[in-house]
Amino acid sequence: MTEAKFDVLCIGNAICDVLAHIEDDFLVNESLVKGSMRLIDTDEAVRLFDKMGQTTRVSGGSAGNTAAGVASLGGKPAFFGKLADDDLGDSYAHDMKATGVHFDTPRLVGDDPTAYSMILISPDGERTMNTYLGACTKFGPSDVDEAVVAGAEVTYMEGYLWDPEEAKKAFLHAAKIAHDNGRKVAITLSDSFCVDRYRGEFQNMLNDGTLDIMFANEHELKALFEAADLETAVEAAKDFDVLTVVTLGENGAMVVTQDETIKVPAFPVDEVVDLTGAGDLFASGFLYGLIRDFSHEDSLKLGSLAASHVITHVGPRPQKNLRELAEQAGLRV
Amino acid sequence: MTEAKFDVLCIGNAICDVLAHIEDDFLVNESLVKGSMRLIDTDEAVRLFDKMGQTTRVSGGSAGNTAAGVASLGGKPAFFGKLADDDLGDSYAHDMKATGVHFDTPRLVGDDPTAYSMILISPDGERTMNTYLGACTKFGPSDVDEAVVAGAEVTYMEGYLWDPEEAKKAFLHAAKIAHDNGRKVAITLSDSFCVDRYRGEFQNMLNDGTLDIMFANEHELKALFEAADLETAVEAAKDFDVLTVVTLGENGAMVVTQDETIKVPAFPVDEVVDLTGAGDLFASGFLYGLIRDFSHEDSLKLGSLAASHVITHVGPRPQKNLRELAEQAGLRV
Repeated sequence: MTEAKFDVLCIGNAICDVLAHIEDDFLVNESLVKGSMRLIDTDEAVRLFDKMGQTTRVSGGSAGNTAAGVASLGGKPAFFGKLADDDLGDSYAHDMKATGVHFDTPRLVGDDPTAYSMILISPDGERTMNTYLGACTKFGPSDVDEAVVAGAEVTYMEGYLWDPEEAKKAFLHAAKIAHDNGRKVAITLSDSFCVDRYRGEFQNMLNDGTLDIMFANEHELKALFEAADLETAVEAAKDFDVLTVVTLGENGAMVVTQDETIKVPAFPVDEVVDLTGAGDLFASGFLYGLIRDFSHEDSLKLGSLAASHVITHVGPRPQKNLRELAEQAGLRV
Repeated sequence: MTEAKFDVLCIGNAICDVLAHIEDDFLVNESLVKGSMRLIDTDEAVRLFDKMGQTTRVSGGSAGNTAAGVASLGGKPAFFGKLADDDLGDSYAHDMKATGVHFDTPRLVGDDPTAYSMILISPDGERTMNTYLGACTKFGPSDVDEAVVAGAEVTYMEGYLWDPEEAKKAFLHAAKIAHDNGRKVAITLSDSFCVDRYRGEFQNMLNDGTLDIMFANEHELKALFEAADLETAVEAAKDFDVLTVVTLGENGAMVVTQDETIKVPAFPVDEVVDLTGAGDLFASGFLYGLIRDFSHEDSLKLGSLAASHVITHVGPRPQKNLRELAEQAGLRV
């Protein structure tokens, strides 16, 4: 195996976030499930946008956020995702390049615009996402640059990729290339509803060796194993030869393997402004440490630090240099 | 004089902000003057954008920010400004409506896109602005809706309006309508370089009764009167029958009239993240109080509170309800 050119290759839907604060009753009136992600069409997008408050617009997408976080820690990330050749796509591509993420997936030639997600931020910081996938539905196996996959220590992919049919094929194609080159494959389960949609297929990937590392929050892990409580879900995860990382919000995070369970507390923050990107940035920190052979505990701490930063402002990407923040916090980085 | 339909009518360049953090040496390498605003063409916009870091995109524009702040305090603002019929224009119009600002200036029919400003945020929070005026250059007297001006207690306009020739005519046209209807006219001097460009004309407006209220920071006031220090500039301001409001950054703010000088300290903040919008939001708070016949001191406090909120996050508009923040701070609102 040659030396890796990239730490982490992140593959996911390339989505621009349109964020707005809402009052508590907004979700009730709109019959939206707090904390979830739903897919919407253009008519619904127009209708909902009209009801949203003042917006902040930033580049997002789960895997894209993770790539940005790895870059901010001083790592070498790459990203695959499908943009249209429009202004939103230009902004997204700019942000990736400006952050230091290797990104050259060809733009979509066609009518679908760059994807966007209207993200509603509740007063407690929880976010509810309404995503129009646009150009992301055209991401497929031909967008998987084999040399980049072969040159990345870990290929990290979103569960969300199972929504567009071709993207799911790209996921499996990339996983095979990674393993053929002796690299690791990681998934984030993305969302409990996403897990509900693809539970059987996700479980199969745990069984058949497609996955080496799995990121999940408590809801997603419980959904995957249809478990009533976290403890049961954690025990179920131990049946598989997979490194499972579970984020627990304000209760911290833990690593679960067949040999051990290690837990760290959350980094305290003055005020939770917007939880968008918390899990994505946690993955940035953990993967950065894991790839450098930090202990699981040190890797968890780095993930917690990255997550604690991103929830103190609107938007899912770091606004400060994570490497400096980690150094200031006395963490190994 | 009939009862006012609006508290404040704000007239200014309708600009979308594209904000990015920079390191200290960026401005030096680019030969940019920290804290200033410069006008750029599309070639320069493309060149600079390529060098900028990861962006946050929000609606901005000095007078537009002030209108949003008045709405957030529970007031009744209106806004005039020129957008193109493009996506950026749609976002801007949405944000104004969502915030509760009356805004129906017709969109530009033509090739100029909606204006944007690339705002570079230094580590200390100071911002340096690079503005492409686009559609704003087509704002003119015909965009001044006489009924709205007549129905607004104060018509508040940017010094920046003197940059596009037709916008300057709109400024003077609106001022005349306001006075013909017994209303007040306010200006913000916008930027010390803007004052340098139009010093004579701004002084004439102080002399000939065009202006009733003037907002300036220390640099702008010194530029207006070509004074070496603040005290000299303040004395010069007293020669005119104008209520002058001077913002002094971390040193607070003051009202200067021929009869009195009243000063209040700045509201303390944990961390200055981005100074964009500080002066604009100060004007929101002060004007909100002034129109309700609050004392100058109470009006200054409300301005200071609004400014202190907006500098704690990236972007020039409130992310929380200013009325609630003021109530929590025990201020009259």
